[in-house]
Amino acid sequence: MTDIIIQGIHGRMGRALCTMIEARTDCRVVAGVDAKELPSAVPVFPSLEKNTVPADVLIDFSNPDATQNAIEYCRAHKLPCVICTTGLSEGQEQALRELSKTVAVFKSANMSLGVNLLIELAKQANAVLGTDFDVEIIEKHHHNKLDAPSGTALMIADELCGASPVPYHYVYDRHAERRKREPTEIGIHAVRGGSIVGEHEVIFAGPEEVITISHSAGSREVFANGALNAAVFLAGKPAGMYNMKDLMHL
Amino acid sequence: MTDIIIQGIHGRMGRALCTMIEARTDCRVVAGVDAKELPSAVPVFPSLEKNTVPADVLIDFSNPDATQNAIEYCRAHKLPCVICTTGLSEGQEQALRELSKTVAVFKSANMSLGVNLLIELAKQANAVLGTDFDVEIIEKHHHNKLDAPSGTALMIADELCGASPVPYHYVYDRHAERRKREPTEIGIHAVRGGSIVGEHEVIFAGPEEVITISHSAGSREVFANGALNAAVFLAGKPAGMYNMKDLMHL
Amino acid sequence: MTDIIIQGIHGRMGRALCTMIEARTDCRVVAGVDAKELPSAVPVFPSLEKNTVPADVLIDFSNPDATQNAIEYCRAHKLPCVICTTGLSEGQEQALRELSKTVAVFKSANMSLGVNLLIELAKQANAVLGTDFDVEIIEKHHHNKLDAPSGTALMIADELCGASPVPYHYVYDRHAERRKREPTEIGIHAVRGGSIVGEHEVIFAGPEEVITISHSAGSREVFANGALNAAVFLAGKPAGMYNMKDLMHL
Amino acid sequence: MTDIIIQGIHGRMGRALCTMIEARTDCRVVAGVDAKELPSAVPVFPSLEKNTVPADVLIDFSNPDATQNAIEYCRAHKLPCVICTTGLSEGQEQALRELSKTVAVFKSANMSLGVNLLIELAKQANAVLGTDFDVEIIEKHHHNKLDAPSGTALMIADELCGASPVPYHYVYDRHAERRKREPTEIGIHAVRGGSIVGEHEVIFAGPEEVITISHSAGSREVFANGALNAAVFLAGKPAGMYNMKDLMHL
Repeated sequence: MTDIIIQGIHGRMGRALCTMIEARTDCRVVAGVDAKELPSAVPVFPSLEKNTVPADVLIDFSNPDATQNAIEYCRAHKLPCVICTTGLSEGQEQALRELSKTVAVFKSANMSLGVNLLIELAKQANAVLGTDFDVEIIEKHHHNKLDAPSGTALMIADELCGASPVPYHYVYDRHAERRKREPTEIGIHAVRGGSIVGEHEVIFAGPEEVITISHSAGSREVFANGALNAAVFLAGKPAGMYNMKDLMHL
Repeated sequence: MTDIIIQGIHGRMGRALCTMIEARTDCRVVAGVDAKELPSAVPVFPSLEKNTVPADVLIDFSNPDATQNAIEYCRAHKLPCVICTTGLSEGQEQALRELSKTVAVFKSANMSLGVNLLIELAKQANAVLGTDFDVEIIEKHHHNKLDAPSGTALMIADELCGASPVPYHYVYDRHAERRKREPTEIGIHAVRGGSIVGEHEVIFAGPEEVITISHSAGSREVFANGALNAAVFLAGKPAGMYNMKDLMHL
Repeated sequence: MTDIIIQGIHGRMGRALCTMIEARTDCRVVAGVDAKELPSAVPVFPSLEKNTVPADVLIDFSNPDATQNAIEYCRAHKLPCVICTTGLSEGQEQALRELSKTVAVFKSANMSLGVNLLIELAKQANAVLGTDFDVEIIEKHHHNKLDAPSGTALMIADELCGASPVPYHYVYDRHAERRKREPTEIGIHAVRGGSIVGEHEVIFAGPEEVITISHSAGSREVFANGALNAAVFLAGKPAGMYNMKDLMHL
Repeated sequence: MTDIIIQGIHGRMGRALCTMIEARTDCRVVAGVDAKELPSAVPVFPSLEKNTVPADVLIDFSNPDATQNAIEYCRAHKLPCVICTTGLSEGQEQALRELSKTVAVFKSANMSLGVNLLIELAKQANAVLGTDFDVEIIEKHHHNKLDAPSGTALMIADELCGASPVPYHYVYDRHAERRKREPTEIGIHAVRGGSIVGEHEVIFAGPEEVITISHSAGSREVFANGALNAAVFLAGKPAGMYNMKDLMHL
């Protein structure tokens, strides 16, 4: 049984975690952290520093400021953590890498099995198709999402870059100039509207044919479930940086 | 029988026009204009001013500079013209409106029946759905296309704006700021890759549901055929500005 | 304030209705009907005949047998009813038409605004495009759905038939014969998988261009909300058969 | 330089082959076979038996009857052959396997690089996702296509079956019974309309997420080019059955 603290427990993802955890027998939530005060079945603290409940893992689904606190808290308490917050600064990313030298850190811009599979498939497609095919990424999310493009879209692009000899650069806007597309571009398009949970599409457009690999999330539960899987996986692991690929290969 | 001059006869669309016109009995090509010298079944002149062949209509599928020549030529010769070139400057658009006071001018950023139907459907959808639904447009074209977004994508957005009380503004890039989408945005996304002929998609994303209206062109012939229909329609028409909607209602 | 009885209150749609109704001030649930016994904030009866609570409208989201009971109960009690159950027999459809002579009946195979808009757009597209364009319908639902094609897909096809001079017939399977598609076919394809809430796509495929109108439901709440809108609309209406089109035009 | 005979040279694919071969320096067409008499730059014979021109490879893009002739001719003349015709009988498939014991035979239901990549990606996705995800295939082709589902759709399904421990069976029609989908089904849907060149989509629908891998062919040239690549590859190869996978791994 993995005991979990949820930072951001009253946010949308925090509530999804609490819903999904009810059906599980391998983990439970023992405390929460949230600036908001709301009735809760577990103790909820206004900040991590105030927490008094021992746990095996912290899941952080909050905002970059709160994640900064989480990093300091986990270092001080040697608490493994699953970081699901997106939009971190370069400094925060660096702090996480530092943290992973002494604590197990699980970090993924996207917690779904499907998205991580999409990335693996896209890398293979790119390896076979080469520069005859142009790569474009379209992501779609609800209109309240603050960051654009999504952390997941950037994760897909970064992984394609990392696995390819092509020196890709990202293009977010084409309306300002008249010119042909270069083969080294990866166009990244952030569609925002309604209550769309999350869609990602990688397009390989070549001579007279197009291959598309896409992922659609039906509800936040898909990410909550992935985060719980990650927490159970992480409990008791040695220090290091872990991601969904480690989990997929289990 | 409508006699047609094609400006840009050796370009990709010019060749498509020549191919499609072979199967028709209501029109024929009598001359071409093109800077390139290539063998041709009809006389081809390096510029419109050099043309010596009488005709009923000019079809212009060229570039903004050549279109400028076409405007002057058609005014001087009272020649009706079908303008298919995109990427015109505001001054050129104004010159076309001037021209239409004395000559019949047919202008459409997109010559296909399907695209023009898509615009009508999108306007109706927008009227029923209102501001509860966010509007986004995705267009996809081959990697050699110079302008972005496509003239057709802008045409769709402009028509939605013109028919709606909402003071929309266009957003081409969201990566630079962290903020919620505003209901008055129309996001416009220009995907470029491979040999994609032309796809346009209007997305209405609302609470827990999404409606999408999309159009896909299989080949340039769809535009060539529309331009020929327009030329036959325009021959003998009084001065004025005409578009696909006039043609659809025939 | 419209008082509502929900038949099928412990089913998936019944629970969605109870969730959505909490946020509304124009209606409330006063009783439920369900064979299952589960804790509930309102009285729940094993069958409609046992119900003792007065109400303004019945919402039926159950199964064809229970709908049969609802028809008899509403006739006896002059209770307006919103029928959301799909898969009714021809006899039951006929009984509903009979019922609507004395009671207000709201019937729609699909309760979402978006789906009903899709139908209107598809009818207009078909009127403009005519027989040069072939019509195909694809619907996608979760793997537990019993009926195929969905009531909504048939509703789309029936409405297209009703509005067109073309004597269409439906084709569900093409694997048995080698032959060309006839222009009078409407192909209807029922995809089943995972937890897909509901997607419908009408394809108009013509010479070198394709127009597609599609609808995607993000969650059952979209249908629950539509049913509640219908119930509020129906309360106090004179006898007659009503549908989403009446509601859209309000 | 590979010398090629094209059976079905006046058909749509035959003409596409002739167009594409003009741009190539590694192969040329030396003769054709076709029942139709049309002007041609190379000698064209009414049947293969009448052919008098020596060649390195035969490309067959015809019909099952003509393919039968091709099998006999290639055995008699030890001529390697690329078989692109679909809709062969079980007997003809068996005859091809026999033929491959003495001659190099290249057989693929689909000649495009993209489609064959799609199959490899779909097999890997299926291996990772397992039976929690339901598999459905949608293919779309023009309204003159005789066979349904396409040879390519069946090829995708067969390859998924061959690589999986799940005892899948194919379902082409769901309208006749009311029942839940079984995890062992692969639904295969044949959409027919307009001039669609060829689209294939493999859907993996799981709990709250869907992964889709799709391929779209822009024109017949994509298959023609693949067939020419296959012919060049096959010339001089030892007897055996070859396919696109062999070509991809070169």
